[in-house]
Amino acid sequence: MAVTTEQVKELREKTGAGLMDCKRALTEANGDLEQALDVLRKQGIEVARKREGKSASEGTVASYVHAGDQIGVLVEVNCETDFVARTERFKEFAQDAAMQVAALQPKWVAPEDVPEEALDRERNVLREQAQKEGKPEHIVEKMVEGRLSKFYEEFCLLKQPYIRDDSVTIEDKLNELVTAVGERVVIRRFVRFQVGEEDA
Amino acid sequence: MAVTTEQVKELREKTGAGLMDCKRALTEANGDLEQALDVLRKQGIEVARKREGKSASEGTVASYVHAGDQIGVLVEVNCETDFVARTERFKEFAQDAAMQVAALQPKWVAPEDVPEEALDRERNVLREQAQKEGKPEHIVEKMVEGRLSKFYEEFCLLKQPYIRDDSVTIEDKLNELVTAVGERVVIRRFVRFQVGEEDA
Repeated sequence: MAVTTEQVKELREKTGAGLMDCKRALTEANGDLEQALDVLRKQGIEVARKREGKSASEGTVASYVHAGDQIGVLVEVNCETDFVARTERFKEFAQDAAMQVAALQPKWVAPEDVPEEALDRERNVLREQAQKEGKPEHIVEKMVEGRLSKFYEEFCLLKQPYIRDDSVTIEDKLNELVTAVGERVVIRRFVRFQVGEEDA
Repeated sequence: MAVTTEQVKELREKTGAGLMDCKRALTEANGDLEQALDVLRKQGIEVARKREGKSASEGTVASYVHAGDQIGVLVEVNCETDFVARTERFKEFAQDAAMQVAALQPKWVAPEDVPEEALDRERNVLREQAQKEGKPEHIVEKMVEGRLSKFYEEFCLLKQPYIRDDSVTIEDKLNELVTAVGERVVIRRFVRFQVGEEDA
């Protein structure tokens, strides 16, 4: 199997290993990057395992721990340039997002992040609720989709009302920021720990 | 199917719904707690979904964001009583653990948390390394297990050298703390965000 220049480049970037070593390892691994990594290591070639997975996006990590240290949040917000990442305004947004997650416990960033299974489960519940209310079948599906937006408002960070001003959503605040800094901004991920809660 | 008192109690605690509602929902769901939750919701009974999963352990959440806001860590450390959770000493340990995770990038808390797959992969690499060094077969397995401890030292928080004093491990520091406070102490989980890294 032919190994492409791109693959060799990617393996080199991941490992810092030499050109020929990377080429040989990839050939042996039939072009599989993960396997090629193991091939290199088996040959005793030091690879920078920890650097696996770095990509180029800029941004900031913000944390918020609520008074009493029982709830903590970590948020990563990305933008396009280091310059924007360092601005007060950008950092404030990340900080606000962290507080928001602490207070309103979203489960996902955006509606498209909700797993199909959770959505199906919610739809089922909403459908039966609507049926129990005696709504005709052709109305039921519309009601389900309508009420689903309430589900998103409750559990998706972007759709939640902003805790400092509930006339806008976090998404509105994000769009304001985008306009102000002139760059794409993405809330990439968050995590919320509460002492004693079970694992998700 | 008979529904046990324990199940009813658990569903009540999870939902705050009435005794008879819980009993009926569990019967309908054949004793399945998750399904019973949906049954309640389908009947329009308000359930405290967000309280799902709370358990009783005490402890603290600590965060650490490295200068420059490119690396952030969240750690949960548990103990038995609220009293210990509030002590300076306990909080300091959690704070140190968070800094440690930021600096040394462990992947797991303890060796027993390493997934079988990652362990197999590491064993394979170490085995071939040892074979390439021309070691006899009966030595190879011993070498693999020996070198595996280096893997744990690198990737398991408890086995890592403590960043403020590398003559001890985090586990040693934890045991010191246990002796001092007279309670079981557990580093329950941590998460580390680095701007731009790919998802695990």
